[in-house]
Amino acid sequence: MKRKITKKFGDRVRELRSAREITQEGLAERSGLSRQYIGDIERGVRNISLINIEKLQRLLALAFLNFLISNDIS
Amino acid sequence: MKRKITKKFGDRVRELRSAREITQEGLAERSGLSRQYIGDIERGVRNISLINIEKLQRLLALAFLNFLISNDIS
Repeated sequence: MKRKITKKFGDRVRELRSAREITQEGLAERSGLSRQYIGDIERGVRNISLINIEKLQRLLALAFLNFLISNDIS
Repeated sequence: MKRKITKKFGDRVRELRSAREITQEGLAERSGLSRQYIGDIERGVRNISLINIEKLQRLLALAFLNFLISNDIS
């Protein structure tokens, strides 16, 4: 069965956060998002928006935004 | 000056849509999103959510979601 995109995204956030040994609390503090929100994102129960994706991307170095904007980084 | 992520995303959507010779109307019809919504996304004035990003991704073959989930495509 195909996993929902929110679940795939949440799993990836958790994986990258764990690899960097950052707690949910630490990620919340650094991103300006709430601990509850981070937990919801990791469980795939929230439909995160682009602006918040960018906040996490900066901290977790998610690769996708680089590709998204690869033609014109300014 | 750094462009906002919504503007970068919108520019990329427009670029990919144009390269495929799809109109905004055509993209709206295929994605199930409204023509107005597509226009707003391309102008960078809406903060699109992950689920709607996925809808556009399927049509425009945006590269980033592949990287996002590269460790576990199911």
